[in-house]
Amino acid sequence: MSHSNSIDKSMAILAPIAEQNGIDTPWDRYEKMLPQCGFGELGVCCRICWKGPCRIDPFGNGPDRGICGATAEVIVARNLIRMQAAGAAAHSEHGRHIALAMKHLGEKGLDAYAIKDEAKLKGVAERLGIEAEGKTTLELAVEVADISLNDFMNQDHHKECTWLSKSLPPVTIERLRKAGVLPHNIDAAVANVMARTHVGCDSDHVNLLLAGIRAAMADYTGMVLATELSDSMFGTPKPVITKANLGVLKEDAVNIALHGHNPLLSEVICDMAMLLNDEAIAAGASAGINVVGICCTGNEVMMRRGVPLATNYLSQDMAILTGAIDGMVVDVQCIMPSIATFGSCFHTEVITTMPDNKITGARHVEFSEKDALDRAREIVRICIDAYRKRDPHRVNIPQQKETAIVGFSTEAIVEALSLVNAEDPLKPLIDAIVSGDIKGVALFAGCNNVKIKQDHAYMTVVKELLARNVLVLATGCGAGAFAKHGMMTQEATEEFAGESLKGVLTAVGTAAGLEGPLPPVMHMGSCVDNSRAVMLASALAKALDKDLSELPVVASAPELMSEKAVAIGSWAVALGFPTHVGIMPQITGAPGVVEVLTKTAKDIFGGYFIPETDPVKAAETLYDAILERRKGLGLSV
Amino acid sequence: MSHSNSIDKSMAILAPIAEQNGIDTPWDRYEKMLPQCGFGELGVCCRICWKGPCRIDPFGNGPDRGICGATAEVIVARNLIRMQAAGAAAHSEHGRHIALAMKHLGEKGLDAYAIKDEAKLKGVAERLGIEAEGKTTLELAVEVADISLNDFMNQDHHKECTWLSKSLPPVTIERLRKAGVLPHNIDAAVANVMARTHVGCDSDHVNLLLAGIRAAMADYTGMVLATELSDSMFGTPKPVITKANLGVLKEDAVNIALHGHNPLLSEVICDMAMLLNDEAIAAGASAGINVVGICCTGNEVMMRRGVPLATNYLSQDMAILTGAIDGMVVDVQCIMPSIATFGSCFHTEVITTMPDNKITGARHVEFSEKDALDRAREIVRICIDAYRKRDPHRVNIPQQKETAIVGFSTEAIVEALSLVNAEDPLKPLIDAIVSGDIKGVALFAGCNNVKIKQDHAYMTVVKELLARNVLVLATGCGAGAFAKHGMMTQEATEEFAGESLKGVLTAVGTAAGLEGPLPPVMHMGSCVDNSRAVMLASALAKALDKDLSELPVVASAPELMSEKAVAIGSWAVALGFPTHVGIMPQITGAPGVVEVLTKTAKDIFGGYFIPETDPVKAAETLYDAILERRKGLGLSV
Repeated sequence: MSHSNSIDKSMAILAPIAEQNGIDTPWDRYEKMLPQCGFGELGVCCRICWKGPCRIDPFGNGPDRGICGATAEVIVARNLIRMQAAGAAAHSEHGRHIALAMKHLGEKGLDAYAIKDEAKLKGVAERLGIEAEGKTTLELAVEVADISLNDFMNQDHHKECTWLSKSLPPVTIERLRKAGVLPHNIDAAVANVMARTHVGCDSDHVNLLLAGIRAAMADYTGMVLATELSDSMFGTPKPVITKANLGVLKEDAVNIALHGHNPLLSEVICDMAMLLNDEAIAAGASAGINVVGICCTGNEVMMRRGVPLATNYLSQDMAILTGAIDGMVVDVQCIMPSIATFGSCFHTEVITTMPDNKITGARHVEFSEKDALDRAREIVRICIDAYRKRDPHRVNIPQQKETAIVGFSTEAIVEALSLVNAEDPLKPLIDAIVSGDIKGVALFAGCNNVKIKQDHAYMTVVKELLARNVLVLATGCGAGAFAKHGMMTQEATEEFAGESLKGVLTAVGTAAGLEGPLPPVMHMGSCVDNSRAVMLASALAKALDKDLSELPVVASAPELMSEKAVAIGSWAVALGFPTHVGIMPQITGAPGVVEVLTKTAKDIFGGYFIPETDPVKAAETLYDAILERRKGLGLSV
Repeated sequence: MSHSNSIDKSMAILAPIAEQNGIDTPWDRYEKMLPQCGFGELGVCCRICWKGPCRIDPFGNGPDRGICGATAEVIVARNLIRMQAAGAAAHSEHGRHIALAMKHLGEKGLDAYAIKDEAKLKGVAERLGIEAEGKTTLELAVEVADISLNDFMNQDHHKECTWLSKSLPPVTIERLRKAGVLPHNIDAAVANVMARTHVGCDSDHVNLLLAGIRAAMADYTGMVLATELSDSMFGTPKPVITKANLGVLKEDAVNIALHGHNPLLSEVICDMAMLLNDEAIAAGASAGINVVGICCTGNEVMMRRGVPLATNYLSQDMAILTGAIDGMVVDVQCIMPSIATFGSCFHTEVITTMPDNKITGARHVEFSEKDALDRAREIVRICIDAYRKRDPHRVNIPQQKETAIVGFSTEAIVEALSLVNAEDPLKPLIDAIVSGDIKGVALFAGCNNVKIKQDHAYMTVVKELLARNVLVLATGCGAGAFAKHGMMTQEATEEFAGESLKGVLTAVGTAAGLEGPLPPVMHMGSCVDNSRAVMLASALAKALDKDLSELPVVASAPELMSEKAVAIGSWAVALGFPTHVGIMPQITGAPGVVEVLTKTAKDIFGGYFIPETDPVKAAETLYDAILERRKGLGLSV
């Protein structure tokens, strides 16, 4: 029954291979799951205590209360905010890992790591209020790490996380403070959600939802520190031209797919792959080692090193069906356990590396920063050995491959703009927004979801907005989708951008020496790098002396699925952005919760959720929201 | 249809009143929920991302994997460890609240609070390695609070929580360290569980379950510090004689029911009730104010003040049907939102007090330590005002009431034993265990659950074990059940204790001046006070130079339902105790998880879960486990 439901042409090529090998694709697994539980889809299933499970009857014929008396509103709100807490925990665990590594690097040294971008570190230190004068780079690194770690430690409820107050516009901070949603401590915000959703605790959906927003702001905190510290250690991305989609795999190379999220692993593997290239050639791979990326690790190494991107979330296990991946090396988050099954049907070594993220059936090589070089060497050699076992007859690499100009960190965008106006780099962008050449800015983020034809919603919404002269930023598996489908090329600007947007992208691109426009979709990084878009928006807000919620900036997660995406969408709303979600959120069993998130939120935060599964309608609604903001600022619409 | 399914005779009296008023009892709500979702009951329902909900077919005819590829083992393990994390978060949030209050008290003073038990504080400080010499009580309090808070702050993975290493036997700590389950930070352990259970993270059920045990150990850490700091601030319980069950309500008094968990609220309300007693008399309540307890707040004030206990978890809303409760004042945890509905059918003021725990439809008076006296005054006056609206015709107080000798803190037990042997207080207990007069020790803890006739499983298991000369400790709603049913009387010892146990209880009771035996069930406090039982067991283990897992000590949660209870049961297993759960845990859809928790755990920890819904069989199995331990120690069986 193997099939695919994707606009990615590679998938149609690979699906029959799954069938031949008797393996279920993600779409098969989805089909087998149908019909999905309606109670769960509405959010009205409660499994918080063992009196349950309880389910509210959405038709009003059965229970309208859980056994404890919890209403649908309470059940739905509790379920949702636990998702936000989990998202915050995942992102911030990633951030903490990097902060701990940076501290260790600064205090004791770590062979495999360095502060590669001293200018970035100094900028970060300055923003955090650290006096840099007379300190070594490593001393600064320790101080930056300590302040970052303190955002996980502070027990004073009256003192907000430092990374929050130091990275958002003061007027935004003031608004969020009034709403009571600024966390004082990332871990504590997560634990607070878990505590207050315990049976018999918070039973007021509004109160619960505000706690979820606080956890989402903790998510933001963990993300921004993860990105800023990663840039300091591994370099701030600059524009680079690379390729995307499974055609980046090479028949004559040892193909190592890096998958997951955390650059602490992938950066060292990339370094080691270069060192051991000759060993791969000696093993018979004439093209040596070919490192490719999947998911957000893919975005990390694509942004910083121009490593080509093999694919995004939903097709991660399908990539193994090419028969050409010798090793899939993973760390944390969004790693389908199915890859172990797929790997075992081929010669592919699926290698887990993190103590907290193992997969039954996969090989585990425990990685740590201290012995990073040794473990990376071991891992790369396992991949080379696997190459020796590769069956050439089973290799089937789809020849799908698109050029992708990526690497648009906030700094890179500002630098490009400074070539237009060196004294006031933001002015060209502000002028374009004011004049209406750029109507607004849209940030695309999120995952893939089997409930939507893979990448289709991304492509539809983005084309609609580009045609309306909306500047597009993208991260995560959204960025992966756009890269795979050629939306990060100059040609795409010509084809899809509205005339005035094209003019601006061409002016900046030409000034930057590209001999043509910037791509219409700016790849800002992995999902944890959504903070880059906030940094850019915050710079605009500060320049204009406005709250983020006043800017013509919107967010869209057309194909989201993960708790991280739920958390990101939630802080986007809190920061003030109208935020589209293309999957029906599992909250619709509670009209009060829907009301708060789609309407009341607008009064409190400016931002609000726009649940819309029709991508064309979603684009129209987002564009209307941009126009509403423009009106609010007195700009042409 | 209103009915009850309880051995508590009050319930049969009150159920018809629910029916007359058209309100559903907890048992009605349960009945309406039937049939409960089988996927949820087996644990094989996954709602961790929005590709789902996914459900594994337990019969093997449908999906054997989630859409991401997660197996039943992974799904069940993730669901379970999120429960453990939530339990840890709830208990430790309680502990942190008390630590922060103690720090505030020490640094800036707090009108409503004091260090009432300086000797306890000094003992705690000494155990934590704080030099007390030359420091004021308040200075010591600040240091104790700081060390406690540091267990929420420490970012060094190699340094375990201080409260762990300072409260458990070194040999136990060493074993747990080897298993990798000692947390370095309570919040971080909770966040770690949430992060690693995010979609696409840890996909190895054994690895997941170990992380859950680590979160459970964080739960223990939060609990022990909550108890020890509470005792310092509010006094260490000593034996006191009081009453239990709804007959403690008074027709001629303003009845204030304190419900929830945290003594920071209830202690001040108790104080204030005494101060405002004349106002109640002036309002027409000739008996003044009658404070009663429900659930674990009930246990807290019962242990420290002899405040009578009205009822335990499952009958909390039923208590309102007496028509005699003027105010139900609640803080956090295990508070059914249904009390707001019940309250609105009567004159009863249901008052929430904590910012993180509101109930839609209830009155909220926000309480904080700083304005504790003002808020307590406001709350008590609201209750007095409500009394004026009480309809005497609707008052229906069941005349159920039992004497309860409670207050058996570890210190109180040791003090009682010291009257038998002043030089070596533990010796009489150890001698009795060695001789077999006491076969072993059983700790009863946990909740009520609609799936079991209320209190019936507690009573059945305990009678079986008492007859076999097992010494019984109890906390939480288990203790509440025993108090309501007369198991904390001297008569109960006569009736239910085996001959040799009776002999020991009589010897100690007589030495303590009770002119008869101790009660057969020792009330050790609220659920957070389970640490008291561990303290006693640890003292025994240290005296015998044994690991906790070698002692003839077992635990039983015959009627558990909450995530806190799941966490408690899990650390009981980790500490080494065979642990009975009387509700089928929602894990049975994963044979591997069941194997780990019921069998493999024994190899790793000594302790293991005994899921058994038949209370007689459970008692037999627990007794067998005690005999096995006795054999291991070379003692008679």
